[in-house]
Amino acid sequence: METLVSTFIYRHTRILIATERPTEFIDLTDGLQRLVAEAGIVTGYANIHSLHTTAAIVVNEHEPLLLEDFASVLERAAPDDGRYQHDNGTVRTVNLTPGERRNGHAHCRALFLGSSTCLNVVDGRLVLGRWQRIFLAEQDGPRAREISVLMIGGGR
Amino acid sequence: METLVSTFIYRHTRILIATERPTEFIDLTDGLQRLVAEAGIVTGYANIHSLHTTAAIVVNEHEPLLLEDFASVLERAAPDDGRYQHDNGTVRTVNLTPGERRNGHAHCRALFLGSSTCLNVVDGRLVLGRWQRIFLAEQDGPRAREISVLMIGGGR
Amino acid sequence: METLVSTFIYRHTRILIATERPTEFIDLTDGLQRLVAEAGIVTGYANIHSLHTTAAIVVNEHEPLLLEDFASVLERAAPDDGRYQHDNGTVRTVNLTPGERRNGHAHCRALFLGSSTCLNVVDGRLVLGRWQRIFLAEQDGPRAREISVLMIGGGR
Repeated sequence: METLVSTFIYRHTRILIATERPTEFIDLTDGLQRLVAEAGIVTGYANIHSLHTTAAIVVNEHEPLLLEDFASVLERAAPDDGRYQHDNGTVRTVNLTPGERRNGHAHCRALFLGSSTCLNVVDGRLVLGRWQRIFLAEQDGPRAREISVLMIGGGR
Repeated sequence: METLVSTFIYRHTRILIATERPTEFIDLTDGLQRLVAEAGIVTGYANIHSLHTTAAIVVNEHEPLLLEDFASVLERAAPDDGRYQHDNGTVRTVNLTPGERRNGHAHCRALFLGSSTCLNVVDGRLVLGRWQRIFLAEQDGPRAREISVLMIGGGR
Repeated sequence: METLVSTFIYRHTRILIATERPTEFIDLTDGLQRLVAEAGIVTGYANIHSLHTTAAIVVNEHEPLLLEDFASVLERAAPDDGRYQHDNGTVRTVNLTPGERRNGHAHCRALFLGSSTCLNVVDGRLVLGRWQRIFLAEQDGPRAREISVLMIGGGR
């Protein structure tokens, strides 16, 4: 499909979210569809990037029991009570902050999930399958989180 | 490298695939290279997005035994016969469909793999390393699958 | 935020890296920020793609002990001494090269990590959180590695 566009649009937005639990999947889909509509982009990309190293962006189904399953497989891949050198205060010297949490497991889980997802925009909407929803995947909450959304494309 | 382009091109295509096995890696590379050539894009992006929550897009080598190894590590990360709440018909109430399959494991595997990949287009071709091929990674087949490919960039 | 741009820029660069160890996380962030500045892109994307099937692009914190933790969880997900059909010289017939290493584990780890990341550029810089750094994640070094970076966006 070719698209005729008359203007070229760049729109950058930051989304702020206060997460409430250690592991949490927060559905961003409706908010992102609104941002695309407000930007007036007909055809283009929306790149959604978590600005954190213990919270990821993922796309999957929003079914509450499935989100519990995701937490379980992530716990198995990088257990909360595993041994992480990152959490070893007797040897670590880099990037230390006051009151830092034990969160080696959360970094490892975020590594597997990835920090961003680039989505297609067609006919003024994010292209998603029937069951696809976009989530911020919190792995070290509760925390204040920030997401960078850059939409670029052609408008009417 | 700077590129001089005289036109700006948007091209969206959907690829339909009927998968044949529960786990299957379907090589999309040649078809995608053709789409890029047909679109006439010299420099730009091709964002390839699976419209499903149990089938991913991945880039790796097309060596048949290696694809078996991938199936094995994914089986270990999220076993087919594991216990998934998503498959627990006695407690689940959300997004139920008639004749739904047990597929909690497939969602978990797709979560690890990711639903999309953005590739660079340079000199009219997808930039790929010697061994890199692009796959639809089916985790819950056989099914009818659909992939959204949005190419944006400059043409001659 | 809307951005006014007067020119449209495409810039493709290849980064060459000689890795030194079997598993290694090489911080590309400062070099990539320089590339974005040199390209003169104010608002746009930088898509960073490893041209290899045993080395990935990831975003996380640059804390040396944490990088050891990453190596450990990847080792658990796809052990170096596991059995991979890809390494079975008695049955494999495809893509064989002289002096090929046993590297089934490295392919599997790269599969989980992903070959590329698309980042947002705003105000002439890659948008990154406080702790976020971009790494080439070598899983089968030492090797000569190549990364494709395509920056597209509006300049002043």
